[in-house]
Amino acid sequence: MKKVYLDNNATTMVDPEAYEAMQPFFCEKYGNPNSLHDYGSQISPYLRKAMDQLYDGLGAGDMDDIVITSCATESNNWVLKGIYFDKIVTGEKNHIITTSVEHPAVGHTCSFLERLGVKVTRLDVNSDGLINPDDLKNAIDDKTALVSIMWANNETGAIFPIKELAGIAHERGVLFHTDAVQAVGKIKVNVIDAGVDFLSFSAHKFHGPKGVGGLYIKNSQKLTPLLHGGEHMGGRRSGTLNVPYIVAMGKALDIANKFLTFEDSHVRRLRDKLEDALLEIPDVTVVGKREHRTPNTILASIKGVEGEAMLWDLNKAGIAASTGSACASETLESNPIMEAIGASDDLAHTALRLSLSRFNTEEEIDYAIEEIKKAVVRLRSISSSFAYAPKGYKSGL
Amino acid sequence: MKKVYLDNNATTMVDPEAYEAMQPFFCEKYGNPNSLHDYGSQISPYLRKAMDQLYDGLGAGDMDDIVITSCATESNNWVLKGIYFDKIVTGEKNHIITTSVEHPAVGHTCSFLERLGVKVTRLDVNSDGLINPDDLKNAIDDKTALVSIMWANNETGAIFPIKELAGIAHERGVLFHTDAVQAVGKIKVNVIDAGVDFLSFSAHKFHGPKGVGGLYIKNSQKLTPLLHGGEHMGGRRSGTLNVPYIVAMGKALDIANKFLTFEDSHVRRLRDKLEDALLEIPDVTVVGKREHRTPNTILASIKGVEGEAMLWDLNKAGIAASTGSACASETLESNPIMEAIGASDDLAHTALRLSLSRFNTEEEIDYAIEEIKKAVVRLRSISSSFAYAPKGYKSGL
Repeated sequence: MKKVYLDNNATTMVDPEAYEAMQPFFCEKYGNPNSLHDYGSQISPYLRKAMDQLYDGLGAGDMDDIVITSCATESNNWVLKGIYFDKIVTGEKNHIITTSVEHPAVGHTCSFLERLGVKVTRLDVNSDGLINPDDLKNAIDDKTALVSIMWANNETGAIFPIKELAGIAHERGVLFHTDAVQAVGKIKVNVIDAGVDFLSFSAHKFHGPKGVGGLYIKNSQKLTPLLHGGEHMGGRRSGTLNVPYIVAMGKALDIANKFLTFEDSHVRRLRDKLEDALLEIPDVTVVGKREHRTPNTILASIKGVEGEAMLWDLNKAGIAASTGSACASETLESNPIMEAIGASDDLAHTALRLSLSRFNTEEEIDYAIEEIKKAVVRLRSISSSFAYAPKGYKSGL
Repeated sequence: MKKVYLDNNATTMVDPEAYEAMQPFFCEKYGNPNSLHDYGSQISPYLRKAMDQLYDGLGAGDMDDIVITSCATESNNWVLKGIYFDKIVTGEKNHIITTSVEHPAVGHTCSFLERLGVKVTRLDVNSDGLINPDDLKNAIDDKTALVSIMWANNETGAIFPIKELAGIAHERGVLFHTDAVQAVGKIKVNVIDAGVDFLSFSAHKFHGPKGVGGLYIKNSQKLTPLLHGGEHMGGRRSGTLNVPYIVAMGKALDIANKFLTFEDSHVRRLRDKLEDALLEIPDVTVVGKREHRTPNTILASIKGVEGEAMLWDLNKAGIAASTGSACASETLESNPIMEAIGASDDLAHTALRLSLSRFNTEEEIDYAIEEIKKAVVRLRSISSSFAYAPKGYKSGL
């Protein structure tokens, strides 16, 4: 059976080159890089190379820190809770601004801080899934400690104008964090140009391994650690360094950035082809304008077709897609982004997210188009919960 | 040149079988286990098997939770900070008891909590590196929220009587946590028998990969998460699951436990042989009685020989050892355990830690004995900082 993986916003295949790069560090070069003997010191050049790849890949400067974490969830928790201890527990500030469409690693952490008494403002998005920068201007007050806005949305692919938003925060002397998990490796991300103070990233979204990520910290500024301990990484994040994954992440980012043009041409063309085909089906909408989205992502709503039923049909045909964030898949709730953009409850259950990668081929996309069309016909024909009956509906579409 | 790795308390080689077990999960079975399609669901049986291996390996029950973390440092931070939010911020309690010889992941986290106003009692150790259980009894008061005492010390190998200590805490209704990083895989660890509430462990100390660990939680009791987010692991620890490393950790624990008898016979015999040879050298002491130590560890003090100088000589001979915790190696401070057991400042700089594994051979140990003896003669002959001149000292020892 054909296998087509169109769920790259959930996770990606490790690039074979990145995999190869990390292999020696399990059973051969297994020393603790903090050790003083050769088993430790022989690791240094590989770590240095990986860190250089990360600095280059994100456009970070020598005065900045890039700190390795176990994932972007950790990076996001670290920024929000670090700021809580640095600026809010002290009484200096009491307010964090974010959006209503952040990943739960930001959204739920903000809810936790809210329960501790922090005031949290969640900016609404429009039907394209984007915020109005003026809303950010209006939300900032003298007690605002941090603005945290994602670079690109995990479900819609919507790209937020980070440079403009960071500028607004900085005009008022407020720190700016971005969860760039869905941007890094898909579009150009340059921390200096964007002017962000903190940026979270995760290797497994750009063909590195699951379980490693990082936090960029402008000018190595103070941030209370989330993990105290053995003073690894200059005391910023304790825990023995995950050498193989750091090496793989550096390599994966390096490769991903080399493929950015390919991503913007080949992947975008395949995505657009798939999207065009979807939009030919009656009563299908796609969230957000293409030019404001990452080139690999489609969040479609197919009226009369429950998202989970569609996944089931596609899965039987060997195609992997999702109804939205994999993190929420255990609960089978309606897609929260669809709700945030103002879709009705019915439509919110019809979400289908298709997210491509540079490993997808034209043949795969043609096959996916064919199978999606078949599934729509089948599922609409048995649709009860939606009682789908569009004007001019033809079976055998 | 011969290569002999005697720094297994810092980190270990990944067992080739554990490495093999995780290989398919990078470039083939790379789905996000939370995804609803086959790429995700095909992961489930492997994760379940790994979790079963962890439950079996630690003797945990069905009502208990084992939550995967990125390392024991995260597990330790989680317990201490979780208790802070659950019992201390609420005003219910205000006191944590620990020891003066914990790993910094506990020690420094306690210092952080101290700065937030938490009262921390650090129990002293005797010259064997062990605490007096009566000191724990006397330290507990009505405001004590948690006792956190390591199962085995990373530097001396000293084994703490965890069952007895947990019993003392429980008599007073106080929760008990143990950092068992240096015990798991070296000696029998059974969470039910020991009666602990929380137990931290780390794969890379028992021939699993660096960057994955876990926290055992008795009766799945409440503990405020350290990482909020996508509700992975039942909402206890967010972040996409590091599938390959979880599989490898399960396998590594399974193998390590099968080798426990071997550890207690073969590894212990090699350790004792090495220790006997060290003790034949004049003015060498070893911290703690053998029967109270993990079978793989020696912390020796070699009068007149600076620890770092010894490492250098051994390293030139291809032998990896340490002066103590790898975590503190960047600072070149005197060994804090040596200070805790009451050694003079001079002696604290003479610490040499040798930690074996099941992969060490008799030939390696014989070679190490020979090279250590050579190094002692050379370094004592040029010793200035210690002006070593023992009675009856003979060169060419």
